[in-house]
Amino acid sequence: MHYQKPKGTADILPAEAKKWQYVENIAQEVFETYNYHEIRTPIFESYDVFERSSGESSDVVSKEMYDFHDKGDRHIALRPEGTAGVVRAYVENKLFGPEQVKPYKVYYHGPMFRYERPQSGRQRQFHQIGVEAFGSTSPDLDVETIAMAMQLLARLNLTDMHLVINSLGDAQTQEAYHQALVDYLTPLKDELSADSKRRLTTNPLRILDSKDAHDQELVAQAPTILDFLSEDSAKHFEAVKAGLTSLGIDYEVDNTMVRGLDYYTNTIFEIMVTSPAFNNTEMTAIGGGRYDGLVKEFGGPDEPGIGFGIGVERLLLLLDSQAAALQAKPLDFYIVKTSEAVEGAAFKLLQAIRQNGLSADQDYLARKVKGQFKNADRLHAQYVITVGETEVETGRVPVKDLATGEQVEIAIADFTTNFAGVLAKLAK
Amino acid sequence: MHYQKPKGTADILPAEAKKWQYVENIAQEVFETYNYHEIRTPIFESYDVFERSSGESSDVVSKEMYDFHDKGDRHIALRPEGTAGVVRAYVENKLFGPEQVKPYKVYYHGPMFRYERPQSGRQRQFHQIGVEAFGSTSPDLDVETIAMAMQLLARLNLTDMHLVINSLGDAQTQEAYHQALVDYLTPLKDELSADSKRRLTTNPLRILDSKDAHDQELVAQAPTILDFLSEDSAKHFEAVKAGLTSLGIDYEVDNTMVRGLDYYTNTIFEIMVTSPAFNNTEMTAIGGGRYDGLVKEFGGPDEPGIGFGIGVERLLLLLDSQAAALQAKPLDFYIVKTSEAVEGAAFKLLQAIRQNGLSADQDYLARKVKGQFKNADRLHAQYVITVGETEVETGRVPVKDLATGEQVEIAIADFTTNFAGVLAKLAK
Repeated sequence: MHYQKPKGTADILPAEAKKWQYVENIAQEVFETYNYHEIRTPIFESYDVFERSSGESSDVVSKEMYDFHDKGDRHIALRPEGTAGVVRAYVENKLFGPEQVKPYKVYYHGPMFRYERPQSGRQRQFHQIGVEAFGSTSPDLDVETIAMAMQLLARLNLTDMHLVINSLGDAQTQEAYHQALVDYLTPLKDELSADSKRRLTTNPLRILDSKDAHDQELVAQAPTILDFLSEDSAKHFEAVKAGLTSLGIDYEVDNTMVRGLDYYTNTIFEIMVTSPAFNNTEMTAIGGGRYDGLVKEFGGPDEPGIGFGIGVERLLLLLDSQAAALQAKPLDFYIVKTSEAVEGAAFKLLQAIRQNGLSADQDYLARKVKGQFKNADRLHAQYVITVGETEVETGRVPVKDLATGEQVEIAIADFTTNFAGVLAKLAK
Repeated sequence: MHYQKPKGTADILPAEAKKWQYVENIAQEVFETYNYHEIRTPIFESYDVFERSSGESSDVVSKEMYDFHDKGDRHIALRPEGTAGVVRAYVENKLFGPEQVKPYKVYYHGPMFRYERPQSGRQRQFHQIGVEAFGSTSPDLDVETIAMAMQLLARLNLTDMHLVINSLGDAQTQEAYHQALVDYLTPLKDELSADSKRRLTTNPLRILDSKDAHDQELVAQAPTILDFLSEDSAKHFEAVKAGLTSLGIDYEVDNTMVRGLDYYTNTIFEIMVTSPAFNNTEMTAIGGGRYDGLVKEFGGPDEPGIGFGIGVERLLLLLDSQAAALQAKPLDFYIVKTSEAVEGAAFKLLQAIRQNGLSADQDYLARKVKGQFKNADRLHAQYVITVGETEVETGRVPVKDLATGEQVEIAIADFTTNFAGVLAKLAK
């Protein structure tokens, strides 16, 4: 019988997994310099958690949720994104309490899920890296968050980055703008696409995001949210722009950008990257924004939040096309055994190297000496150590550098008792 | 509205997540010295994958699987353990092919799931770290695998380790022993516990594992599998024991150990640890073994395999009780701002430090100077830099070591253009 991975999932094999580790490690390093620390929330949550956070009218909830009923008939969903679980954990664990330093800054990475129609070609299990910061309305925190996102991409050697920002304002702004947008679009209703027609009553803001060409023409003439910003929201947005400028970060304001989730308030942003991986069209590498009402929605205090998310699969495509340095570390040592009689001695030597923190391997398929050398080559071993009966008798082994062909003799005992000496000899 | 994490799941908050990172990093380091590399398989698989690998009569399949039907009516299960998905991926991706170096060695870590009855107190989402090696029957590979497991626990500073091994033999052995066991137990059937009675026909080997006291008495007199080993299996087991002895690894043979899954063949092992975390009773920290028929069961060639798994939650309890050094890294710098006018200059200084790879933070809640210093303390900052109008004018800031109280003056420009010089000044 043959088994296959489920539709919409992928196996990440070792050569590819190295790239994932590389990206995760760089993200961790950058985030930690900004005093962000890791949080891990469950792979699944109650369905309500995502319904609440994404907005009932959003695509995530209405069409794409990977949900099911468990054996206790609970309505469960595999998490579609990272923010909702983190906010749920923030409230449930009372991380807003006085014993925590504000802003409370966390990052996460891991699998996310959506139940896509198979023809879309999108993965049912995909992966995100993200950050969230709670408890400060300071526009400087928005600037820091954006600067951190830019720094992460720069550390990954991405170039051609293009930061786009917008403000969705506070509740007062959104109410006023919502009305203005409905007033503008209602007379044009018959010209709208079917999706947008529906959204006119459920969620008119999302019409700004329509992919339909004629919708886009109509939307181009619509009133802009930036003209409706409340005094607070306008001041906040000006401070964010000034902060970015002060740090030398270029940006463009796009007043039609709304992003896909209903919870955003005030600053939202996307970092676009132009890459041959996507036919030199601009793709969103990182997107995020403020969500000042979300903690309260989850039953917590009225505390602000801000964050961003990155799709790891897309990021890796961008890196591949930039030929980023993702080389795997080669094997440090390969031990070649010339007879069965030396197996015990060779094994001890192997273990001594490993216990000193370097990588080493030997043959486990009774290969002849020639086959063992070939294996060392295939594993890109840096050094080959040949252990034969003479070597065991004399207590000294030849260590050959496969790149240069140079060979030095080293006492077997040194690998256990004087490993620094071994390394010094090889470094010569 | 209040939301709660689903029953049987946990939030891993930052202080705790550091311990997880620590364990995962050490495991990665140790495994890579043995030339193991990471593989990542999906969080869920077709139900059949686990039914096949665990044995239909096993507890994992009959009672504990976290399975459901997806929206396309596929029978899906959240993975209950790591081996089955890895073997499925090994076969599906044809990793047995000649272009791969044998043995093919991989490790994994991540969430696993079981649908436990809630009263058991066990987690529905739990976590495992594991390794698998395919393509070699060499007893030296068994020895290497066990040595690697021991080295990992030693690197984590666990002591009081106790290695227990057994052999379940090959197919020929298992057939002969199965018959002998049934012959011995059938006359005693009425004395067996209800579970064991049922297993007498479905899976008599598992009776050896019974927790029932009277079952254990009966089993103590049962024939031992080691007396039924085929010639090949006996030779293999002798070689494993000799190899362990040669590397100085102590072990005990326990001929009643069978482990929980049906796929094991020949060598199986457990590393037991005695810890105050478990009332000084012995707990299994790592368990594993050979599964020479499993790749074939999954539709691949008749290739051997061996691996082990570690429960991360239990491992962390063991580490906590040994007060292992799991200290979080402190924040490197905290920037105190004495007025709004210096915010731009302070932010640039902050960013310069972060871009040089050290961690730094500032206030985002408009705290007074005193509150900022208090925050620096709470974040365990090593250095505090005070930025005021005088400092911006003179271009020099005081950098105070919070532990010693010592203070040095450093040019602001140096943080951008001569960070090595900054570090040198602080190191004095």
